[in-house]
Amino acid sequence: MEYPILSGIKSPLDVKGLNEKQIAQLCGEIRRCIINTVSKNGGHLASNLGAVELTVALHRAFSSPEDEIVFDVGHQCYTHKLLTGRFDKFSTIRTMGGISGYMKPNESPHDPFITGHSSNSISAAYGIFTSKKLKGEKGTAVAVIGDGAMTGGMAYEALNNAGHVKGNFIVVLNDNKMSISQNVGALSRNLTKMRNQPKYHNFKLTAGRVLKAVPFIGEYIYKGFDALKDTVKGIVYKNNIFSALGFNYLGPVDGHDVEAMESIFKIAKDYTKPSLIHVITTKGKGYSFAESSPKNYHGVSPFDIQEGATQGGKLNFSLVAGNCLCTLAEKDDKICAITAAMTEGTGLSAFAEKYPDRFFDVGIAEGHAVTFAAAMAKKGLKPFFAVYSSFLQRGFDQLIHDGAIGNFPLKLLIDRAGIVGEDGETHQGLFDVSFLRAIPNVNIYSPSNYKELEYRIKYVADREEISAVRYPRGCEKTSDFTDFEKEFSLIKGDGKRLIITYGRLFSEAMEIKQKDNDISILKLNKIYPLSDELVKTVLSFEDVYFFEESQKSGCIGEYLASRLLESGYKGKYTIKAVENKFIQAAETSQALNQCKLDCFGMENELRS
Amino acid sequence: MEYPILSGIKSPLDVKGLNEKQIAQLCGEIRRCIINTVSKNGGHLASNLGAVELTVALHRAFSSPEDEIVFDVGHQCYTHKLLTGRFDKFSTIRTMGGISGYMKPNESPHDPFITGHSSNSISAAYGIFTSKKLKGEKGTAVAVIGDGAMTGGMAYEALNNAGHVKGNFIVVLNDNKMSISQNVGALSRNLTKMRNQPKYHNFKLTAGRVLKAVPFIGEYIYKGFDALKDTVKGIVYKNNIFSALGFNYLGPVDGHDVEAMESIFKIAKDYTKPSLIHVITTKGKGYSFAESSPKNYHGVSPFDIQEGATQGGKLNFSLVAGNCLCTLAEKDDKICAITAAMTEGTGLSAFAEKYPDRFFDVGIAEGHAVTFAAAMAKKGLKPFFAVYSSFLQRGFDQLIHDGAIGNFPLKLLIDRAGIVGEDGETHQGLFDVSFLRAIPNVNIYSPSNYKELEYRIKYVADREEISAVRYPRGCEKTSDFTDFEKEFSLIKGDGKRLIITYGRLFSEAMEIKQKDNDISILKLNKIYPLSDELVKTVLSFEDVYFFEESQKSGCIGEYLASRLLESGYKGKYTIKAVENKFIQAAETSQALNQCKLDCFGMENELRS
Repeated sequence: MEYPILSGIKSPLDVKGLNEKQIAQLCGEIRRCIINTVSKNGGHLASNLGAVELTVALHRAFSSPEDEIVFDVGHQCYTHKLLTGRFDKFSTIRTMGGISGYMKPNESPHDPFITGHSSNSISAAYGIFTSKKLKGEKGTAVAVIGDGAMTGGMAYEALNNAGHVKGNFIVVLNDNKMSISQNVGALSRNLTKMRNQPKYHNFKLTAGRVLKAVPFIGEYIYKGFDALKDTVKGIVYKNNIFSALGFNYLGPVDGHDVEAMESIFKIAKDYTKPSLIHVITTKGKGYSFAESSPKNYHGVSPFDIQEGATQGGKLNFSLVAGNCLCTLAEKDDKICAITAAMTEGTGLSAFAEKYPDRFFDVGIAEGHAVTFAAAMAKKGLKPFFAVYSSFLQRGFDQLIHDGAIGNFPLKLLIDRAGIVGEDGETHQGLFDVSFLRAIPNVNIYSPSNYKELEYRIKYVADREEISAVRYPRGCEKTSDFTDFEKEFSLIKGDGKRLIITYGRLFSEAMEIKQKDNDISILKLNKIYPLSDELVKTVLSFEDVYFFEESQKSGCIGEYLASRLLESGYKGKYTIKAVENKFIQAAETSQALNQCKLDCFGMENELRS
Repeated sequence: MEYPILSGIKSPLDVKGLNEKQIAQLCGEIRRCIINTVSKNGGHLASNLGAVELTVALHRAFSSPEDEIVFDVGHQCYTHKLLTGRFDKFSTIRTMGGISGYMKPNESPHDPFITGHSSNSISAAYGIFTSKKLKGEKGTAVAVIGDGAMTGGMAYEALNNAGHVKGNFIVVLNDNKMSISQNVGALSRNLTKMRNQPKYHNFKLTAGRVLKAVPFIGEYIYKGFDALKDTVKGIVYKNNIFSALGFNYLGPVDGHDVEAMESIFKIAKDYTKPSLIHVITTKGKGYSFAESSPKNYHGVSPFDIQEGATQGGKLNFSLVAGNCLCTLAEKDDKICAITAAMTEGTGLSAFAEKYPDRFFDVGIAEGHAVTFAAAMAKKGLKPFFAVYSSFLQRGFDQLIHDGAIGNFPLKLLIDRAGIVGEDGETHQGLFDVSFLRAIPNVNIYSPSNYKELEYRIKYVADREEISAVRYPRGCEKTSDFTDFEKEFSLIKGDGKRLIITYGRLFSEAMEIKQKDNDISILKLNKIYPLSDELVKTVLSFEDVYFFEESQKSGCIGEYLASRLLESGYKGKYTIKAVENKFIQAAETSQALNQCKLDCFGMENELRS
């Protein structure tokens, strides 16, 4: 039997009954199971490997679902899934119809809240905690949050709000010394200082349990042993941001020592004030490739376990964008690049290395990033903020208030625009079109292939306008179309039917045209705003189909409909977009097919 | 001459030349000028009165515009306006065509960035600072931020990012011990602790300048005098959130002692690392009414200087909403109210007093507020987050990710929806319709009068859906319409022309109908989503006018256009909304008139 102990864990209760040896064996099995599964399905590896013992300790100290544990981001929730009745389904993680790679309440009562975007766990857990108190429910609420997520403003807002509460609200800081990219910023330095306190705390409780907080080999020096009889006050190291915000600071503690963590968690549970427990973990723990190069094993595609994940790999839209920015920066010293902790993901590693003075990783702080970029644009520089579509939602107000009112010409490189695939509903880039076009002064472009992306980045770099260039996750489908310099490209057919589309779907539409030359294709190169000339062009067709990889509500097709109707259009008009719902995890092609946005769906629509 | 010194100040240079006695006189003149002007125009009084000496000291220590000073929120920028060449125009503040009540770059080179929404100043100033360094420009950048704004996550994101910079980046914390409402949360307690440090610092520099940081009478006890010869390291009190984030903490210092502040600012300017200067001010300083009751003098309407601002005043949409929630809470203990530091503004004072256990002021933290509410909704409570439309923009991602994906039925009371009047472009509530309707699972209602607002709040309280009830700033225009229980109300005329509208504009439309009974009016009570029945109703008209107090891009009129076009509508269709631009300060009626959205504009549109 591959997983003799793990396969017997049907609920967290089963974890509580294990002895020290069994726990060690369980952790080993969990690691193997995670590595095996992620090597097949892809997913978040290094962060999950780091949180194995932490999660086991949480489920021993607390009683889920009575105690409600919210794992921030969910990059660290695989062990939690395995211990809460989802071992049998674990092989389906991140596949169509399978379990989610993130926390999902309608998947299990042990997932108290949705987490996918960073830094919301403390707010959610505090809302749960407050509700439990009001309703007189038993148990507490625990937020488990990484050091990277702790750089997000929301985490701070929640700490500030929760720090004055009377009750045992608990935050566990899973400090793996590295968020997604290398951690930057002042908090990171502060944590390093805290980790390096000369006295690495150890505890002995009256209960007789020996807490072994063995420091990391080579990093910490084991300096002594404090036997704290009936108080743990001594372990509260006061001089840090968390105690300043009213939290009882406990730690640091070895995040791979189950017993030590279990005891501290129980101590925190017994308090009548909020606690923050600082747990030090090693990202990638237990898989040598991941441990030695954790940032390359943050989110991975399927890989060979013996050989490790292949690095570099195929060219994709992100790398094309990053490389293009590098090339531009060589000749134009006003070009700057900004990322919110997504250097690798947005293809900016080369830029970061080549132009460190003009590269800014601001932490998981999209709101700040937008305003920072707006201020640089106001000062005459050319800041490009490269950001995933769904994360840019965090900077919406800043785009309006700090960018658009002053029309400060910042540039957005919107990565992962449209369907993103296996990360599922929390990560789909299906809102940026609707929310960006609501903002005055914003110009939106949506290239279809690499060449067009490069052309467009160069184009916007020289324009005194707020520009958003959005492109999908992954690779181009075809590269042959090059007539993308104007606002739109009309590929004429013989009849009166017209397909309008943009971005990735253009390739799908062209496949249809190849089969049926009756059809004309109108490719939007600039998707917002649309000119009167474009509206006039569309008016000459009698049967118009708008295919769009966006939520329907607020999409460009809707906007064009109103422009056409106001211009007296009397023909047929059909919009096919995402029908205002959240799209579950699936391969991108599967999701596009389900939404009827691939060439098959288009063809059916045209036939109906 | 009413303002002998102030009227002579044409630029900050003129402030530098004044002696101690003249400075005192100048501060007195500034206070009189602010009180006089605000008593006529309305505006932010208490916060501006608190920042007089602080601003004078800033302009003596720094050289604007070479040094770029960003005042957060702008509630504290009136003195800055008076000292930077805008004394002559000051009487026009917050009026149509006049100067803005907030910082505005195209008004003056001394306003380096736009500030209106809270907590963006550090991000903006840091972006400016970074740009200056890259460009090799002289001078530094300074953010001036209140203790209330410091509770916003953006401020923290920016501090974390800026804390590691090499250079004299400066943040001035204007701590008036009270943001807009009474300050809550852990940061507030931490600041109190810092203010109450036994040793209130005083400084003497080698230059021979005597710094008098006289503590507040009755609050601080003067405990000694430190003469610091050639170092000011001793004044850095280490144990606080700011030093944890890498800032040199300087203070606290008396915010009404110009000389003391001036010296500390100069010290900070000479550093090569970032500083945070903690300045203690008294909100409302110098106007007894405001000083004794600062929260009532935060934002005021015109008032009599001798008698003070009248409190309570007329009923308005905010109070109706707050009172309604109170009534509901009496019978339903699941009802909770959440505010982001806007207890008075959103009409929740009575609720806060009556149901303290179910009332949550989370600080200026809209993102956290939404997630906190979503978690409470998930736990079966009925949380109502009352928030200004334009501030809800800060919670956009949280609405999608934490609210809508799980369909956790939180409720939004969206105050100041539509044109807000004198606060101008930063505060207009013209985006919520577009951004809310882009989010699946959100239902939007827009009552036209008090009775409908009450009806609607009761209605959504009992529904298992995410609901947004939006209403304008100010008072209802007419109260007689009561047929608002269905999704829409059709007031039939004799002809084929139809006006569709909702919210405040319904009263305007009805005025037209009174003159011309040919016209039918369709009032949307639920504005999103719209049913097939509604679309069918509209299809029977030949000439449709949609009037809407919202940005046009993404408005309901656009959405209906696409629904109509997809349903084969062949008639005329006209949308009149805000033409995708920012609306400047003016009285609400003036702004509606300019946008052609009042009954006169509607009438013209129908005639054309």
